[in-house]
Amino acid sequence: MSAEDGQKSLLERIEMPEIPDDVAREFSLLEQRFIRAETDRLRRSTVENRPLWEQRSKIISKVQDDFWVRVLSNAPAEIDEYIQHADAAVLGSALKDLTVERFEVDEKGQGEPRSLRFTFVFRTGDENPFFENEKVVKDFYWRKKITKTPKGKRRTWEGLVSEPVRINWKEGMDLTKGLLDAACDLAEAEKKQAGDRKKLPEFEKIAKKMEELESAAMEDNEEDEEDFPTPAGTSFFGFFGYRGNVVSAEESKEANKEDDERFEKALQGEKFDDDDEEEEDEDDDEDSFDEIEIFPDGEDVAIALAEDLWPNAHKYYGQSFEVGEDYSDFDEDELEDEEDDEEEESNSHPRKKARV
Amino acid sequence: MSAEDGQKSLLERIEMPEIPDDVAREFSLLEQRFIRAETDRLRRSTVENRPLWEQRSKIISKVQDDFWVRVLSNAPAEIDEYIQHADAAVLGSALKDLTVERFEVDEKGQGEPRSLRFTFVFRTGDENPFFENEKVVKDFYWRKKITKTPKGKRRTWEGLVSEPVRINWKEGMDLTKGLLDAACDLAEAEKKQAGDRKKLPEFEKIAKKMEELESAAMEDNEEDEEDFPTPAGTSFFGFFGYRGNVVSAEESKEANKEDDERFEKALQGEKFDDDDEEEEDEDDDEDSFDEIEIFPDGEDVAIALAEDLWPNAHKYYGQSFEVGEDYSDFDEDELEDEEDDEEEESNSHPRKKARV
Repeated sequence: MSAEDGQKSLLERIEMPEIPDDVAREFSLLEQRFIRAETDRLRRSTVENRPLWEQRSKIISKVQDDFWVRVLSNAPAEIDEYIQHADAAVLGSALKDLTVERFEVDEKGQGEPRSLRFTFVFRTGDENPFFENEKVVKDFYWRKKITKTPKGKRRTWEGLVSEPVRINWKEGMDLTKGLLDAACDLAEAEKKQAGDRKKLPEFEKIAKKMEELESAAMEDNEEDEEDFPTPAGTSFFGFFGYRGNVVSAEESKEANKEDDERFEKALQGEKFDDDDEEEEDEDDDEDSFDEIEIFPDGEDVAIALAEDLWPNAHKYYGQSFEVGEDYSDFDEDELEDEEDDEEEESNSHPRKKARV
Repeated sequence: MSAEDGQKSLLERIEMPEIPDDVAREFSLLEQRFIRAETDRLRRSTVENRPLWEQRSKIISKVQDDFWVRVLSNAPAEIDEYIQHADAAVLGSALKDLTVERFEVDEKGQGEPRSLRFTFVFRTGDENPFFENEKVVKDFYWRKKITKTPKGKRRTWEGLVSEPVRINWKEGMDLTKGLLDAACDLAEAEKKQAGDRKKLPEFEKIAKKMEELESAAMEDNEEDEEDFPTPAGTSFFGFFGYRGNVVSAEESKEANKEDDERFEKALQGEKFDDDDEEEEDEDDDEDSFDEIEIFPDGEDVAIALAEDLWPNAHKYYGQSFEVGEDYSDFDEDELEDEEDDEEEESNSHPRKKARV
């Protein structure tokens, strides 16, 4: 066989049009086993690491005054791109402390380890000219939802959901230009009145506000709309307004129960003819809850904060002292040179290999 | 205090010129505790995951014919950028199987979990017009080395080291153009004769070969030299020639012993005045062993294979069936549109959130 024949058979092989059903099913079951094993490990490591994080907090308290501003000045691109000029000024001068907890894991290592609690502690009084809150706590719950497609196939959604958290801005200081308040208003109105949220006056109000802000930002900015990772011009503080999918604790519990039973049966060899669709069309899912999301990338930002910025904060802090680093960067407009950020990332990111 | 004053105090705070000594020491000790805890967890997860990887191998064997070509066609950018046109043709038609093992971890979970063994299984005889090897095994050992700087400070190096592995190319088929052979020749000559390797004729030979290939590639290519991640034009098969730092098993064992003792003493509160230098200048380190490295990014590629391509292979395989994917990509020249690759990565990368 010549090299040319080799090439030919390569092309033939990759023309197989579909993944064989049994192989797809087996890989899917295997992947569930991996995820379950990894989630168990995350439960254990959460408990194991707690004394270390406490120890770190004690060390941080010695340099509290400039710890977080240095960390944020070295934030990885995946966070940095959401911090606008004005956000940097506010966070840099008002943020006193930040903690991330996998708060649903108890002392015995029971509970959902993917749920996250972010506690932002701020300076108060005259030291914080921007808002009144001393503490802003944003909880993200890891939830599951199972629906049926029109064809009768299962569709499983898993992810982080949250509720908007209000910030008591001082006069004229609201960086979200009223969007965060509108998101909080809508969530509160929904709690008072069950039914279709699209019929609430608060829904109309926030939808209109988002439109206005978007067109205002479009006018301000000649550049391509795609440069904006969030609805045009939205501040990092929009993060506190993230909701995600609408899945109650009860609904999620039921879905987990159903999934656990199905998983056990699948391990025993049972086959199901309503298996999850192979090609999950994410857009369909998101359409159902995304349309009034003031900070659509909230889940990604939460995960980046919890898995990178916060656990590596002491390394980003250390890097901020390295020769050649320029702190004034933190106050520059990051959006304009996103490409540079990407280059920087590969240099300034704590090395993965230390934690292989 | 006005917003302006807030800004001012921010600038004052970030003018602190150096990290306080005690804080640096405490963070460094804490980081060691994190790394040790995480390395222990990696030992445990290595043992826990073995049955799952075996299960996966069984499933893969059902679709062996096109599994790896589909995986490679969906490889993440960090791997893909090292696979040249010709490499893709060879790997696509000749690669039968690939396994990654943390081979220094025994059944009881003892041993160094960061060491890696890559086993490439190839078609043979007429089915492989390129080389004779049925199996190519490349071992990477995680080793530690402690040296003293001229100022008497400690410098700790940790990383993957390896030995060149020969490929028996068929006539005219050597994609590395003799580089891999030259690297193997040098390593063998060094084993036979202790002393300064720079005085060996094999050293001069490989150094000259690298220069020749580099200038030939420079002529072929008008573009910026920096576009090439490896010495100009080097094939992916150069990976088998990677060596890294020169650290013997014995030397590494001694360094680990010294480090363990020091770590225990530090936990007891002992302070050392020859602490590792804060600003480790990596270039200095690399200079000592990099100059005849035919595949300088070997460690990064090994880690990307072990932590991404291989563990996620079944997901990359699944993605290869998704609508809109184009397999012919695998045979295109990747280097010319690296930017596109980067964009693709964010889409085609298995979602992290499933494994938070």
